[in-house]
Amino acid sequence: MASRGRAIVCHDTHANGGWKMEEVGVRKPGEGELLVEMVASGVCHTDVIVGGLPGGSGYVKEIGSGVTVAQVGDPVLLSYAFCDKCEICKAGHYSHCPDFNALNFGPQKIFSTEDGEPEISGAFFGQSSFANLSIVKQCSVVNAKDLVKDKKELQLFAPLGCGIQTGSGSVINVAQATEKDIIVIMGLGGVGLSAVMGAKIAGCRTIIGIDRVGSRLELATELGCTHVIDGSKLGDRSLGDAVKELSDGVGPTVTIDASGAPALIRAGVDFTRNRGRIIQVGAAPFDFKLELEMNAFMSTGKQLIGAVEGHAYPPEYVPKMVQWYREGKFPIDKLVKFMPADQFDQALKEMHDGTTIKPILCWS
Amino acid sequence: MASRGRAIVCHDTHANGGWKMEEVGVRKPGEGELLVEMVASGVCHTDVIVGGLPGGSGYVKEIGSGVTVAQVGDPVLLSYAFCDKCEICKAGHYSHCPDFNALNFGPQKIFSTEDGEPEISGAFFGQSSFANLSIVKQCSVVNAKDLVKDKKELQLFAPLGCGIQTGSGSVINVAQATEKDIIVIMGLGGVGLSAVMGAKIAGCRTIIGIDRVGSRLELATELGCTHVIDGSKLGDRSLGDAVKELSDGVGPTVTIDASGAPALIRAGVDFTRNRGRIIQVGAAPFDFKLELEMNAFMSTGKQLIGAVEGHAYPPEYVPKMVQWYREGKFPIDKLVKFMPADQFDQALKEMHDGTTIKPILCWS
Repeated sequence: MASRGRAIVCHDTHANGGWKMEEVGVRKPGEGELLVEMVASGVCHTDVIVGGLPGGSGYVKEIGSGVTVAQVGDPVLLSYAFCDKCEICKAGHYSHCPDFNALNFGPQKIFSTEDGEPEISGAFFGQSSFANLSIVKQCSVVNAKDLVKDKKELQLFAPLGCGIQTGSGSVINVAQATEKDIIVIMGLGGVGLSAVMGAKIAGCRTIIGIDRVGSRLELATELGCTHVIDGSKLGDRSLGDAVKELSDGVGPTVTIDASGAPALIRAGVDFTRNRGRIIQVGAAPFDFKLELEMNAFMSTGKQLIGAVEGHAYPPEYVPKMVQWYREGKFPIDKLVKFMPADQFDQALKEMHDGTTIKPILCWS
Repeated sequence: MASRGRAIVCHDTHANGGWKMEEVGVRKPGEGELLVEMVASGVCHTDVIVGGLPGGSGYVKEIGSGVTVAQVGDPVLLSYAFCDKCEICKAGHYSHCPDFNALNFGPQKIFSTEDGEPEISGAFFGQSSFANLSIVKQCSVVNAKDLVKDKKELQLFAPLGCGIQTGSGSVINVAQATEKDIIVIMGLGGVGLSAVMGAKIAGCRTIIGIDRVGSRLELATELGCTHVIDGSKLGDRSLGDAVKELSDGVGPTVTIDASGAPALIRAGVDFTRNRGRIIQVGAAPFDFKLELEMNAFMSTGKQLIGAVEGHAYPPEYVPKMVQWYREGKFPIDKLVKFMPADQFDQALKEMHDGTTIKPILCWS
């Protein structure tokens, strides 16, 4: 017997008004699956592109066969899914599992409009947390019973397993930045600002944030940027010149693109210093191709690195973030705004205009 | 008073018959420069492209002011030049000094047709070792007085500071490969075969060599390849399929392109496994642009790395290679053929047709 719940069903893109809060049926959890009663869902820019809504948290209502990660009643923080069988997963590179897209953006049927067979796709990001009840794969679950004190914290931590680990992990895990590094972070949404917090934790000697929204630049400074550049106020200078002025005249040692904007990606590859690393974290338009002059690129000794989810393995990395938060080094509370789930339109609006960095939709 | 010597002067490309052995005047060493009597010069493919001839060895004849690296009479092994002043050099990344091209391929005047002012460009690769007497920058010098036993060894070691460090360094320093790695090496000339020796030293579990010349594939197997692929005998299979069959079905963890061939570079970026590293070492045509679909590249988590001279710092890395040679792990004698310097035409011909991997031109 399926449960009844509420979900925001995507009939079309959000821009086309295709997202609707609807009553749905939710099927029972199968092998290796959990039925989770969501308390919160973090909203990400990627969700708007691909139509899912990752980064949720809740309490386990029911478990399928073979589930060992949590028991009924446990609070859980949710993250991405991976196969855990292939060579890439066996090497510990879960966020680059070749089946990542199929497992996280694939058309697994979870929900139904009536009580019959599920005909509505779900399992986005292994969880489809944009519903008050959802089916989650075991691999997406971080058991939070030793991590959170109460429901309010469970809600605050909802986005840890997505944009916040993506941003901070790109500095901590991918760049493995240190106090020797001068780091540039382009695009100061939830991912970019999380990268700023990561750079502060890593002790980077210079942290340069780039955006075009004044309020984001202010928050970036508060979170750890030693310098910010407003891309809308460059005047006659190129972005590269503005960056190099702040980075020994030769550019940063690490550049993180959290914007996905082709012009910024191109500029970042160019202004990063020789032997520097450019880490691509933001989702670029699907049709954007970067042209690399290979002979020149070789001479620079630069490294271009793709990174999903900050190379984080959530069961290990989420507790680290929680610990940093408790130590006052990772003030994620400055990024978030709690909003009732049915205000999702307003949440997306505020995220896009920069009023809110990371809306958290609350289901109860 | 200038010295008199012999040099192969490039009036035009080698293909156009523009290389001539000529009598030349050699000016006196200036500040930070040494006059070196060459005993040998290794021939590299890059030399033919850019017109220099790097990788030499000899004995110091005279030193300019401020020279501390060697005294008159010392045997020396020569490598690339760098500025030693910029942020990149200060960080120890000498082979990616932004002035690398200016210092190594620039038009410093060294030689003269008469005894007058030098009007012939030299200092290619900081040394212009394609002459029996040449002016060398101090930074290009590795003092070999504790490294070599006799003149014959000094000749054998001539190419260490160029193609051989480039290839082996790309595995040892850039990839920092270990026994966990499956490595593909594309293009089995002097650089590629040196990478094979490096991979053997690193203990890589699978070492796959790719070329189209049978004799090179045989030598690659002798030097450490566990598998070789003859690119001219693929039949209906793609190169990627042939490689994946030998690498857990998902591709290598490390791919080194020592070919510079656009089709191979493109294939290597594609067949390398997720989270794998692609290291560009071979000189691609100047007009070749690699098109990277950034969104897809990001998802793979691959790393594209440019590398010059295997990230080696010659005063530290050349002695390592000598040590490996003495331990029997680095049989460079299997790569080389000693030829009198005036047989440079024949040396280039044999290098191109694969008869000889690494010709060493002997000046005495």
